[in-house]
Amino acid sequence: MSIGEFVHDETPSSEIDRLEALYRPLADAVRDLVDATIRTTVDDATIRRTQADVEALVARLRARQLDGPAGVRFNSEARAWNWGNAVVGQRNALAPPLHLVRDPGGLLHADVVLGAAYEGPPGLVHGGVAALLLDHLMGETASAGHSRVTLTGTLTMRYRRGTPLGPLRLEGRIDREDGRKVYVVATLADAEGVTVEADGVFIVPRWA
Amino acid sequence: MSIGEFVHDETPSSEIDRLEALYRPLADAVRDLVDATIRTTVDDATIRRTQADVEALVARLRARQLDGPAGVRFNSEARAWNWGNAVVGQRNALAPPLHLVRDPGGLLHADVVLGAAYEGPPGLVHGGVAALLLDHLMGETASAGHSRVTLTGTLTMRYRRGTPLGPLRLEGRIDREDGRKVYVVATLADAEGVTVEADGVFIVPRWA
Repeated sequence: MSIGEFVHDETPSSEIDRLEALYRPLADAVRDLVDATIRTTVDDATIRRTQADVEALVARLRARQLDGPAGVRFNSEARAWNWGNAVVGQRNALAPPLHLVRDPGGLLHADVVLGAAYEGPPGLVHGGVAALLLDHLMGETASAGHSRVTLTGTLTMRYRRGTPLGPLRLEGRIDREDGRKVYVVATLADAEGVTVEADGVFIVPRWA
Repeated sequence: MSIGEFVHDETPSSEIDRLEALYRPLADAVRDLVDATIRTTVDDATIRRTQADVEALVARLRARQLDGPAGVRFNSEARAWNWGNAVVGQRNALAPPLHLVRDPGGLLHADVVLGAAYEGPPGLVHGGVAALLLDHLMGETASAGHSRVTLTGTLTMRYRRGTPLGPLRLEGRIDREDGRKVYVVATLADAEGVTVEADGVFIVPRWA
């Protein structure tokens, strides 16, 4: 795979569904392990034994693996999969993963629960994690359901107050378009209301 | 722990050093497992068996654990530890983790290698991951070596080109200060030069 290259891959969508159902529970278990590694208070010997056991599992999985990152693939049925994506990747335990829902009115939203691994200030979501999730939602918003390619130009975040860890909602929509520029606005909110506001300018490249 | 509360904890710094040396290799192994879960191409039965084994390790670690996130703690020796932090947490496999170095001239920098788990576009760092790391570096820059409390007001990212996965450098410095406002500028760069520019306004709260 070359950098930036989307790979055409003739795996049928039904097989992609089957593989996602196989890999998702493994990624979920690893996500739980990330959380448990932060929060455990077991004794030192158990920590050391668990480290050795995790290393053995890594060796088992690495017995056969891709040379590099997962990349982005698509088939002739217009199904795309980006299993390693840091925000939505189905095989990436670092991703919450965000599940994006497109509403009839053009709004894109995602409900997510962020736990101990997303902490910045005590008990609060890391400000950079808020930016990570909003960036992704806004890029997807600008691409209007993958009907066009857009590149991120600028992104601005305004932090109104701390965002508590727990259940949160992201919302994004296209504010306006001007030639090849798409202006997107988005928010992150908890049950009490908006905590972070964001706006971004996305560019439809001349070659697209 | 209450949300937003920094906890005074009289664990001596020598014991914190010992605990970090114990936990860091476990977090490193889990970080490798996140990567291997994305890149493995082993057969279905091995995936299922590994999932069950990971779940057993989670149960072992959760036998005794904190009720919530790790929070931020400090002792009377002015040692602070935030083991769950999404960017620098020593026990957080989601964090690269970033290792920040303060140069004599006031510049703060970090060298980091980002792998498959930080992917956005094919072979490139997710734009939101760039924002995540820059946000953290800039907050630390504004706090001037933790000599004062600063809150993030606004953050702006300008994406100049795609950032390849691999070795990268972040740099941040205070551009100017105006009353309680601290203006910080930062960059993310690969060997070819700057890929993302950022600026932020941080606020020294009135109570601080």
